[in-house]
Amino acid sequence: MTEPAPEASGSGDPQQPSKNALKKAQKEKEKAEKKAAAKARELAERQKKEADDAADVSVDAYGELPLIGSKDFQPTGTPRVDLSDLEKLEDKEVTFRCWVENARVQSAKLAFLNLRQGLNTVQAVVAASDKLSKQMVKFCGNVSTESTLAVTGMVKRVKEPIKSASIKDFEIHITKLFIEVKAEVPLPLQVEDAERPLPSEGLGDEDEKQAESSDARPLVGLNTRLNNRTLDLRAKINHAIFVIKSGVCTLFQEFLSQKGFVLIHTPKILGAASEGGANVFELKYFDRPAYLAQSPQFYKQMLIASRFQKVMEIGPVFRAENSNTARHLTEFTGLDMEMEFEENYHEVMSVLEDLMLFIFKELNTRYKKETELVRSAYHVDEFKLPESGKVPRIPFMEGIKMLREAGEELGDYDDLTTPQEKHLGRLVLEKYNSDFYVLDQFPLAIRPAYTMPSPANPLLSNSYDMFMRGQEILSGAQRIHNADLLADMMRKHDPPVDPNGPGTKDYVECFRYGCPPHGGGGFGLERIVQFWLGLPNIRMCSLFPRDPQRVIP
Amino acid sequence: MTEPAPEASGSGDPQQPSKNALKKAQKEKEKAEKKAAAKARELAERQKKEADDAADVSVDAYGELPLIGSKDFQPTGTPRVDLSDLEKLEDKEVTFRCWVENARVQSAKLAFLNLRQGLNTVQAVVAASDKLSKQMVKFCGNVSTESTLAVTGMVKRVKEPIKSASIKDFEIHITKLFIEVKAEVPLPLQVEDAERPLPSEGLGDEDEKQAESSDARPLVGLNTRLNNRTLDLRAKINHAIFVIKSGVCTLFQEFLSQKGFVLIHTPKILGAASEGGANVFELKYFDRPAYLAQSPQFYKQMLIASRFQKVMEIGPVFRAENSNTARHLTEFTGLDMEMEFEENYHEVMSVLEDLMLFIFKELNTRYKKETELVRSAYHVDEFKLPESGKVPRIPFMEGIKMLREAGEELGDYDDLTTPQEKHLGRLVLEKYNSDFYVLDQFPLAIRPAYTMPSPANPLLSNSYDMFMRGQEILSGAQRIHNADLLADMMRKHDPPVDPNGPGTKDYVECFRYGCPPHGGGGFGLERIVQFWLGLPNIRMCSLFPRDPQRVIP
Repeated sequence: MTEPAPEASGSGDPQQPSKNALKKAQKEKEKAEKKAAAKARELAERQKKEADDAADVSVDAYGELPLIGSKDFQPTGTPRVDLSDLEKLEDKEVTFRCWVENARVQSAKLAFLNLRQGLNTVQAVVAASDKLSKQMVKFCGNVSTESTLAVTGMVKRVKEPIKSASIKDFEIHITKLFIEVKAEVPLPLQVEDAERPLPSEGLGDEDEKQAESSDARPLVGLNTRLNNRTLDLRAKINHAIFVIKSGVCTLFQEFLSQKGFVLIHTPKILGAASEGGANVFELKYFDRPAYLAQSPQFYKQMLIASRFQKVMEIGPVFRAENSNTARHLTEFTGLDMEMEFEENYHEVMSVLEDLMLFIFKELNTRYKKETELVRSAYHVDEFKLPESGKVPRIPFMEGIKMLREAGEELGDYDDLTTPQEKHLGRLVLEKYNSDFYVLDQFPLAIRPAYTMPSPANPLLSNSYDMFMRGQEILSGAQRIHNADLLADMMRKHDPPVDPNGPGTKDYVECFRYGCPPHGGGGFGLERIVQFWLGLPNIRMCSLFPRDPQRVIP
Repeated sequence: MTEPAPEASGSGDPQQPSKNALKKAQKEKEKAEKKAAAKARELAERQKKEADDAADVSVDAYGELPLIGSKDFQPTGTPRVDLSDLEKLEDKEVTFRCWVENARVQSAKLAFLNLRQGLNTVQAVVAASDKLSKQMVKFCGNVSTESTLAVTGMVKRVKEPIKSASIKDFEIHITKLFIEVKAEVPLPLQVEDAERPLPSEGLGDEDEKQAESSDARPLVGLNTRLNNRTLDLRAKINHAIFVIKSGVCTLFQEFLSQKGFVLIHTPKILGAASEGGANVFELKYFDRPAYLAQSPQFYKQMLIASRFQKVMEIGPVFRAENSNTARHLTEFTGLDMEMEFEENYHEVMSVLEDLMLFIFKELNTRYKKETELVRSAYHVDEFKLPESGKVPRIPFMEGIKMLREAGEELGDYDDLTTPQEKHLGRLVLEKYNSDFYVLDQFPLAIRPAYTMPSPANPLLSNSYDMFMRGQEILSGAQRIHNADLLADMMRKHDPPVDPNGPGTKDYVECFRYGCPPHGGGGFGLERIVQFWLGLPNIRMCSLFPRDPQRVIP
């Protein structure tokens, strides 16, 4: 038996159908009607979409790209430009990679975007026309902040300089815009908040507060920034800090290479805690303990004993000091040098002074833009250098005298406290008009055991510190290059050091075989950057800072 | 009562003196006689010394100086020359710092010294004359090997080239010689023994053996050398190795800086073992555990997410692998780079290839002398590079095919063993005439979880290794820049990685906010140096190597 066709039921057929058959037929009918309606809707939608697409003249000019490097994405081979070159490309069509600082729809026909690439930002306009659809305007004006884009557009000169962008005289008239990588919303930290100065020099979240400025955005504390460091680091001010940090390294190497220094890499894992044993991190080295190097001191001297003559190192330095201040890190970058000298350790000091003068000079030219960007945010004074080009080289005793005359109470052979150092910095600036200077001939008792005593006074030593804006950036000295004298001074030191210990024996013994007289010093790279820029906290100069409370991220 | 004067006793005085008085007088007499004799001896000695000094016309031209920088040593201010400039100073008197390779007395009137400064050695002659004493000849000919000297002399052209010195056409006619720092004798290791090639690629002291050469000096094994590393490093061959190592770093930075890469310093202390947790050193970080970084991988990618665009790092890398081979170290220097790319990860490969071609080219020019010095000792072939300038870029599957055709048995997705890698190196050299090449598109399963799968075949990946003389120097890839895909691949990896772990969460999450597509790679600096020079053991390329057995010196 075959079921009557649905179209037959409800016809004028005189035969009475069964109740069941009637119900069934009714259902079938409803089903068919639904199906037809769905079909009609689908068709209507397809037709509308086709009409929309037909109307969207820009359908191939915008959208979100598939994951690059996976699936079947084909390279276009279109050359991409650097925004730094934009001024040379007036009225040209350019394509470039950038990311979105912000995007806003002005009207159905107009949207604006602020686009960034490195330290450059540029304004872009998307305007509907017969060649550019309203759909595209809407899409572009709604791109999420921090998304990565491939943008094509015309470089156009503007009449009024654009305040909100670093490129002031040109804007981009967008013709194509593709999202390469979309940023999720919301961001845990707004990059524009990371651009603003820290509310204090401390870490404290208690410092987070409403800004007093008119836009009333919150001032975000350092801890929040560091917890979201990959977003924080996107701020231009942070890019600038680390471009300068990279620059200081490059300049350090450039200057010293030119003078014949060899770049070395000394071990960071030590079999014994060599320099006293305090403040050293211990690790498990297979079945024995080992220690992280607190400095390359012993090794760079051993290389002078190996007749390397002049060595430099850039590497991590580890200090297990439980200091939670704005100027301490448990891991920082040491810029170290050591050299033999002919007759007098002042030869070494001259190299160090010339090195720093070179770095300052080149920072002022090669990294002028970055320096100004950071200093202006923190309202920091220019870094003053003596006009004569002669770095003030002040005997420690003279420094003590200057401080006493200014009212400080301290003994002849006392070490300076941090406030006293800063006070002396102000006095030196007044007297010599220089933010950079050297203290020479420190008291022997407050220096390491390997420091050469002074020929002038046995209570002093051939040692020196360098200062920027009243804060120490380098500690250095002539080292004892005679094994017997060194062992003797180690035993007499307070606290005493065993010259036959597992971490000291190889070091002391290497001076038995004709090691030349030598000296050197170690800079804290983060400190040079911090004081050059006048920043309130050293953590700002470390990409992922380490302190007693922080080892993540 | 007064005692008779001694001269009175024993006179013709008839008075009998007491026994006691007699004895006393006798004693006095002996005393006086002794005194007179001593006086006479002293006078004779003084006269002899005065005569000798008078005869020693050179008394002010030689001797041992007091400890430099201590006591009252006064700088002479005499300019010192670099031995590299000697050829320009013919017939001039020069003063220079140097050290003694050896000194020998030829006759009472003639002594020879081999003097060294850096990689330069020069022959010096001391000849007695009316202006130069025999005493001085004797002193100079007996200076202990490895002592540091200040030498003054005339630069004289020689008729026959001098075989034993690097400066062949000139010698020094010594006029003054002062020992600045005396080397104790005996040395625990002779520097000339350290100049000779290693007896084997191993460490073993069992390898120490008599050389087969005519002078029959012992061949000293690596362990003995490393135990006396500061003397070992004085060998010219070792100076050359580390000048080249320094050079590779400089060239790496020079090339990448020029391309806009920023030098970064990422933390070496990590709060959690991020990359799997195997082979990682654990340390005590105040009251919690922490770990040493096995690579800067996560951090350099996080900086790309922070929009640093192009970053490079030179820093220590720590691997707690208990491998005691000629090619493993527990601490080595990583040369790392990471960059965003526009459309295809081959953009990154091109930068890496161009970088290495630049380094090889400059090593062949700027470090030609050092390269030849080391290679000649080990009879190593020149490093072959393709004449076309096009680096062979071989798909992994093609490499498998080449090995199979040469008789190796291995599956399509197997990792290569070290012998297979070396075999492939020989095949590539035959086919492409190049010691440098790249394998591309490695099987996904044998790469880290963050490696981007291949668009061509889901079992392959957008990853590559670089090889020198058939040994891996770099591992690199396109990385996954999408957080969801990354988390998924981490969970599916063998062994799986938790994308929400304390060491991975910040890393995975940073890709939510618009990170551009990127790739990079990490070189082992010591390996580049080892394979460039063709050295048998990687420890030779580390100043103070670290392996499971060695953390000292």
